[in-house]
Amino acid sequence: MNDVVSDDCVPLKSSLGGQGRIFWLTGFSGAGKTTLALRVAEELRGRGFVPYVLDGDFIRKGLCSDLGFSESDRSENIRRIGEVARLFLDAGLIVIVACISPIKKDRDRVRGLVSAGRFVEVFLDCPLEVCERRDPKGLYRKARREELSDFTGITSLYERPTAPEVHLYTGENGVEACVLEVMKCVEGW
Amino acid sequence: MNDVVSDDCVPLKSSLGGQGRIFWLTGFSGAGKTTLALRVAEELRGRGFVPYVLDGDFIRKGLCSDLGFSESDRSENIRRIGEVARLFLDAGLIVIVACISPIKKDRDRVRGLVSAGRFVEVFLDCPLEVCERRDPKGLYRKARREELSDFTGITSLYERPTAPEVHLYTGENGVEACVLEVMKCVEGW
Repeated sequence: MNDVVSDDCVPLKSSLGGQGRIFWLTGFSGAGKTTLALRVAEELRGRGFVPYVLDGDFIRKGLCSDLGFSESDRSENIRRIGEVARLFLDAGLIVIVACISPIKKDRDRVRGLVSAGRFVEVFLDCPLEVCERRDPKGLYRKARREELSDFTGITSLYERPTAPEVHLYTGENGVEACVLEVMKCVEGW
Repeated sequence: MNDVVSDDCVPLKSSLGGQGRIFWLTGFSGAGKTTLALRVAEELRGRGFVPYVLDGDFIRKGLCSDLGFSESDRSENIRRIGEVARLFLDAGLIVIVACISPIKKDRDRVRGLVSAGRFVEVFLDCPLEVCERRDPKGLYRKARREELSDFTGITSLYERPTAPEVHLYTGENGVEACVLEVMKCVEGW
């Protein structure tokens, strides 16, 4: 028994109208997710939208600080980020999630939380060797030295999106070209 | 989830430039937290702010659906709501949390997450017998019949705030008087 409220509780109201979306940026560490997220947020702001970047690394320090990197903890990490993204969407914001999110079923579960069209999967497709060469956080070096376990691309799986709304080749194309590509989704809003 | 599609352009409110606050509504079930939260949100919206209501009951169905009502689970529930509130604050919104949050150290931990003055504790002080008489969700009846365990005020503790920023007597005063009291915090923003 618990004290969960009955289903007739007052629905939460959207504050900013109905333009909310979740842009879900997935890809290897080093594929450029955070960089792209921040630039897309800037572009959206310039057009009068209210964006917010949910960065996986940042969430790991707060909401998900109790979680590790086992398969189940990573799955729970994505579940929570998805639930938070849903709340931001409900608030009418455009939330840009930057998170490796390697497992398809975890991403698809988030997609299933919201109405059709609200979840925009953006695949930052960058060859592992390029990401490893960039290695902006020195994590690949650590993973190769076996100082990190369960590191995506090295010791744990990345399941490529099969039908992302936006497919970016971030090994070949610069960030500004990718920003333009993402912003095409916004045309006509 | 209210995410009705609208073609209206999203206005960028000045309130997103650093006026964020967390209004943390604490009190017994039946003290009027959700009702007050929704009315305060409406008032704030009318003044051009961007509010969002985080309702504890609602969060229990999503982000915290894995948690029960043991002491440690309730503490984790408050921790997560606090972390989410911090993200909304960071996004520049005024977030109104409606959540029993019975334990002082759990509330104080949230206060400690954000800068001084950003956390506004609002104590809905309503005698237990009044809440039990109202019993809008029938939960007190269930708790008295021992169909609910760990029910605040009946079988589990409520630690009263010792120095809330706003102290409301919701057993005696109507919702509109309480809304005015909360809105005093907003004067001069």
